[in-house]
Amino acid sequence: MDTRRTEAFSDGVFAVAITVLVFGLLPIGGGKHVAQEEFSAWPRYVAYVVSFLTIGIMWLNHHALIAQLRVVNRPLLIMNLFLLMGVVAVPWPTTLVADHLAAGAEAATVTYGLVLLGISIAYSTMWFYIGMRAADVAQRADRPRERLKTLRFMAGLGGYALAVGVSFFSPGAAMTMYGLIAVYYFFEHLPRPMRRAEVVEAGLDLPAAEPGVASDL
Amino acid sequence: MDTRRTEAFSDGVFAVAITVLVFGLLPIGGGKHVAQEEFSAWPRYVAYVVSFLTIGIMWLNHHALIAQLRVVNRPLLIMNLFLLMGVVAVPWPTTLVADHLAAGAEAATVTYGLVLLGISIAYSTMWFYIGMRAADVAQRADRPRERLKTLRFMAGLGGYALAVGVSFFSPGAAMTMYGLIAVYYFFEHLPRPMRRAEVVEAGLDLPAAEPGVASDL
Amino acid sequence: MDTRRTEAFSDGVFAVAITVLVFGLLPIGGGKHVAQEEFSAWPRYVAYVVSFLTIGIMWLNHHALIAQLRVVNRPLLIMNLFLLMGVVAVPWPTTLVADHLAAGAEAATVTYGLVLLGISIAYSTMWFYIGMRAADVAQRADRPRERLKTLRFMAGLGGYALAVGVSFFSPGAAMTMYGLIAVYYFFEHLPRPMRRAEVVEAGLDLPAAEPGVASDL
Amino acid sequence: MDTRRTEAFSDGVFAVAITVLVFGLLPIGGGKHVAQEEFSAWPRYVAYVVSFLTIGIMWLNHHALIAQLRVVNRPLLIMNLFLLMGVVAVPWPTTLVADHLAAGAEAATVTYGLVLLGISIAYSTMWFYIGMRAADVAQRADRPRERLKTLRFMAGLGGYALAVGVSFFSPGAAMTMYGLIAVYYFFEHLPRPMRRAEVVEAGLDLPAAEPGVASDL
Repeated sequence: MDTRRTEAFSDGVFAVAITVLVFGLLPIGGGKHVAQEEFSAWPRYVAYVVSFLTIGIMWLNHHALIAQLRVVNRPLLIMNLFLLMGVVAVPWPTTLVADHLAAGAEAATVTYGLVLLGISIAYSTMWFYIGMRAADVAQRADRPRERLKTLRFMAGLGGYALAVGVSFFSPGAAMTMYGLIAVYYFFEHLPRPMRRAEVVEAGLDLPAAEPGVASDL
Repeated sequence: MDTRRTEAFSDGVFAVAITVLVFGLLPIGGGKHVAQEEFSAWPRYVAYVVSFLTIGIMWLNHHALIAQLRVVNRPLLIMNLFLLMGVVAVPWPTTLVADHLAAGAEAATVTYGLVLLGISIAYSTMWFYIGMRAADVAQRADRPRERLKTLRFMAGLGGYALAVGVSFFSPGAAMTMYGLIAVYYFFEHLPRPMRRAEVVEAGLDLPAAEPGVASDL
Repeated sequence: MDTRRTEAFSDGVFAVAITVLVFGLLPIGGGKHVAQEEFSAWPRYVAYVVSFLTIGIMWLNHHALIAQLRVVNRPLLIMNLFLLMGVVAVPWPTTLVADHLAAGAEAATVTYGLVLLGISIAYSTMWFYIGMRAADVAQRADRPRERLKTLRFMAGLGGYALAVGVSFFSPGAAMTMYGLIAVYYFFEHLPRPMRRAEVVEAGLDLPAAEPGVASDL
Repeated sequence: MDTRRTEAFSDGVFAVAITVLVFGLLPIGGGKHVAQEEFSAWPRYVAYVVSFLTIGIMWLNHHALIAQLRVVNRPLLIMNLFLLMGVVAVPWPTTLVADHLAAGAEAATVTYGLVLLGISIAYSTMWFYIGMRAADVAQRADRPRERLKTLRFMAGLGGYALAVGVSFFSPGAAMTMYGLIAVYYFFEHLPRPMRRAEVVEAGLDLPAAEPGVASDL
C-alpha cells in the first residue's frame, strides 16, 4: 500500500479525535447562571487546551514519521492501527481530568499519562522498525549526525512516564507537565531525512529504491 | 466514477466510525471514586479494543478490495453503501456489549456478531461481483493460484456466524472470538492482483482496459 | 477554487453526517433486558436505514453534480454550503422519527420531509445555476437529448413534497415514501455530461475552456 | 511540509466541527408533544444556522489563506493549530446560546463572540506572518492595489469585538451581528494573489521559488 492512503486515513482519525474534544466543553447542567457555571468549569478549559495541543503535535509528528517511508507494509499498518487506538482514546482521560481536576484527580491524570505513554511507545516502535527495515520501507537515508535529534525526540516518552509518577502526588503538576511536553514539540521534531542528492554527496548507501513495491501487501 | 473518490468517502466514514468508539469509554456517573469506577468498567475496554481492531482491519481489507478495481460503477457504489451502513453501526453493539458483558450479555454479543456478519456478507457480495464483472470493472487479472487465499479470506464470515451461535451460551467466549478474528486478519488478506507484466508473462487474458470509463455513471 | 477542494470538504461533511446517524441507535436506558429493549426499538432501525440510504444517495448525486464543473466560483460555494447545512441536519429529524414513529409522529415526519425538501431545493438551485452559467463554470456540454433525464432526476423534489403532505395523515406511509425515494435514486441519476469528442461530433458549442480560471475567487 | 497535507487535515477538522453542530439540534426531553417542543426550540435553529454559516465561511477563508502559500513551515503549522483550536470550540458557545437565548444569554453570546474573536486573531496573525515572510513561504506576489481589500477583510475582527460589547446589552442583537458578519463574508474575501505572469508584467519582484523546500521541517 502506498503511504498516501495511510496518511489520508490517519489524518481523518486525527481530525475527528481532535474535534471530539469539544464534547468535553459542552455544558451538562443547563442551569440559568451561565457565567457562574462557566467560571467554575475551568478544569475543562485546561483539559481541552492541553489535549488539543497534544493531539495536534502528535499529528505533526505522525507526518514527520510517515514522510520517512517509501511504502507501507502490513506490519507498519498494524502498528499504525495501535497508535491510532491510543490517539482516539485521548478524549476519554481528558473528560476524566475535566471532571476531577478541581479535587481528587490522581486516577484521572494517571490514566491521562498512561494513554499518552502508550501512544509514545507506539511511535517509538514504528520509528525503530523503520530504522531496522530501512532497505525495505524507508524513502531516504537517515542523517547519521542527527541521531542525537532522534534521542531528543524520544524525550517525550520519558516525560510522560515521569508525569504519570508525579500524578500520584500532584495531579495539577502532572497536567502542567503534559502541556509543557506539547509545547516542547512545537520546537523539537524528527530529523528531516536526507534528500537523494545529499545522500550521494555524503557517500552513503541508499536503500534499494523500487518505488511502490512493498515486501508484502 | 473513479475509485479515488469512493476510497476518499469510504476512508472518511471508516475514520469517523472508528473514532466514535471513544464515546463508549466516556464516564457516565461522574462520581468521585475515579479509580474504582475505572476498574469496574473493564468490559468497556474490552469492547473498545475489539471493535477498534475490527474496524481497523475492515479498513485494511476495504482497500485491498478497492485496489482490485479500475472503475466503480453504480451497482458497486450501492453495495459499498450497504457495507458502510454496517461499519457505521458497529459502535452500537459495542455499547451494548460494554454495558452488559459483566452479566447477561447474550443479546448484546448476538447483535454484535450479526452486524459483523452483515458486513462480511457485503464484502463477499462485492468480491464476487468484481469477479463476475472483471472485464468491466477490474483493474488487473486475478492470480488463479491464489484462489485458495480468497477462500481463506472468507473464513471470517464463517467465524462470525459461529461466534453468533456461541453467544447464546457464552458471551465472553463470543467476544474473544470476535477479537481473534480481527487478529487473524492481521496476517490474512486478499490476494494482491497480478501486475500487467505478470499477467502477460503468465499468458492470461487481461480485461479490456479503457481506464476511467465505467459501463454506467 | 478548483473542484477538488470543494469535493474533499463536502465528502468530509457527508462522511461525518452519515456516521453521526449511529448515535440514533445507541441505547439510552441501559436496562438489563437487552433483547426486549432492542425489539421495541424498531423505529430506530427504520430511521437509521432510511436516513443512511438517503444521505448515501445524496453523496452519489453530489458527485454527479460536481463532476459537471470545471471550476467552483463564490456563488456555487455559498449554495453548496446551504446544501450541506441541510445534509448535516438530517440526523435531527431522524432522531425525532426514531423517538416518535411508534405513536404520534406527525410533526417528526413533517420535519424529516422538510429537511429533505430543503436539500432538494438546494440541489436544484445549483443545477439550474450551472445550466445558466455553463460557459463560466461547466466542464463539458450538456446532452440535449438527456433533458428528460434531468426532469426525472427532479422527481425526488416532488416526492419529498408529497410525503410531507402524507405525513399529516400517516407518518408510517411518509417514512416508507422517504425510503422508496432513496431506492429510486439507486437507479436514477443526473445525465453524464458529454465528453469533449462527443460534443464536437454532435456539432455543439463548447464552453470557452480555460481550465482553473473562475470568474470570481 | 507541503500545503496539501495541511489543507487535508484542516479540511477534516472543519468538516467534523461543522457537523458536530447538529448535536445542538437533537431533542433532549423526548416528550410526546413534538410539534410544540420544536416551536419553542427556535433559539437552537438560530444558533445552528449562524454557527454553520460562520464555520462554512471560515473554511472558505482558510483556503484563500493557504492558497497564498508555497510551503508550510513549523511556525505556520503551530499557528494553524491554534486557529483550529478555536474552530473546534465553536459548537460549545453555540450550545450555550441555544440553551439561553430565550432569556439571560449575556454570558453565552459574550463567550460566542470571544471564540470567534480568537479565531479572527489567529487568522490575522497567520496573514501578517505570511506577509512578513513572503520570500520564504508565499507562493505568488501580493497585489499592491488590493491592500485595501485586505483591510476590508479584517473588518470581521472589529465586528466580532463590537458584537462582544453589544452582548452585554442585547444578546439578540449580538447574535444578529454574528449572522450578518457571516453573510458579509459571502461577498468579501482575501485578494486572489497575482499569477506569475501578472507579476512579471507588473514589473514586481517574485519570491525566490524553490518549490517544496521550507526553511524548516
